[in-house]
Amino acid sequence: MRVLGIDPGLTRCGLGVVDGRPGRAAMVAVGVVRTPGDADPGERLVFLESEIERWLDRFVPEVVAVERVFADVNVASVMTTAHATAVALLTASKRGIPVVFHTPTEVKAAVTGSGRAEKAQVTAMVTRILGLEVEPKPADAADALALAICHAWRGVATARLDRLAARP
Amino acid sequence: MRVLGIDPGLTRCGLGVVDGRPGRAAMVAVGVVRTPGDADPGERLVFLESEIERWLDRFVPEVVAVERVFADVNVASVMTTAHATAVALLTASKRGIPVVFHTPTEVKAAVTGSGRAEKAQVTAMVTRILGLEVEPKPADAADALALAICHAWRGVATARLDRLAARP
Repeated sequence: MRVLGIDPGLTRCGLGVVDGRPGRAAMVAVGVVRTPGDADPGERLVFLESEIERWLDRFVPEVVAVERVFADVNVASVMTTAHATAVALLTASKRGIPVVFHTPTEVKAAVTGSGRAEKAQVTAMVTRILGLEVEPKPADAADALALAICHAWRGVATARLDRLAARP
Repeated sequence: MRVLGIDPGLTRCGLGVVDGRPGRAAMVAVGVVRTPGDADPGERLVFLESEIERWLDRFVPEVVAVERVFADVNVASVMTTAHATAVALLTASKRGIPVVFHTPTEVKAAVTGSGRAEKAQVTAMVTRILGLEVEPKPADAADALALAICHAWRGVATARLDRLAARP
């Protein structure tokens, strides 16, 4: 299964394509789309849409996996993240590509075994799982790959989460 | 100046077109786009985008005015509102139509003279200003018209807000 993982954001939006099935995963592509914070808000969304369309054209994923964002301390940043999420959701849905959401906890649990893992640990495991020679950077790129792995392995991840949930 | 006001939402998205200049305003069109809450989230955005495109095609506004939403008590509803806002922002920006944001306080102050006016008062004033025989319903439709009036009158509104801000 080919999955495009998207770590949504306007300043930096992580994109990672993985071919995987439970227990196996290979990286196809990774990148980050950046839009300047002082640009017109609408122009930032138009640029992000065009970049996501380019990735969908080029890599033809079967599924798009997006990080589910909750309200955070920083309201303004949650809003721009929600706008980026909407662009990803709209762009994929217009092509009939299913979009799934995973929480940061699910993604961390899927690649490290712990829903409370640190960012560095997630990056280290993504690097190991995909057999990369260097760690993907910035963190948004690694997170996008982790999302794609999480979804490709969702059977495994679900079982792990069930075990976590069953803990006393 | 022709303004399309958008009160963003997924369950109900208010749309109102007004031709106006400070002190004068005439309604061109008003409506509400509804998408079912149990529909696929991506499909809801695709439908909303197609409806906004239809309004832009039909009424050719010079400006789109959108309500600026802040974090609210209900996190889930803020997220879907942010997604609808992003669709409006993206769709208009792709056509090169400027998008402006106004807070609920600015809109209320523009049409009623008070930033703390009740919803019913806003609807009553929108009805009076536009010379309508019946009140626009639901509230989202009246709010979209109020947004459009607010922007068309922004000179007047700004002066009123300045006076409010100057109060001891």
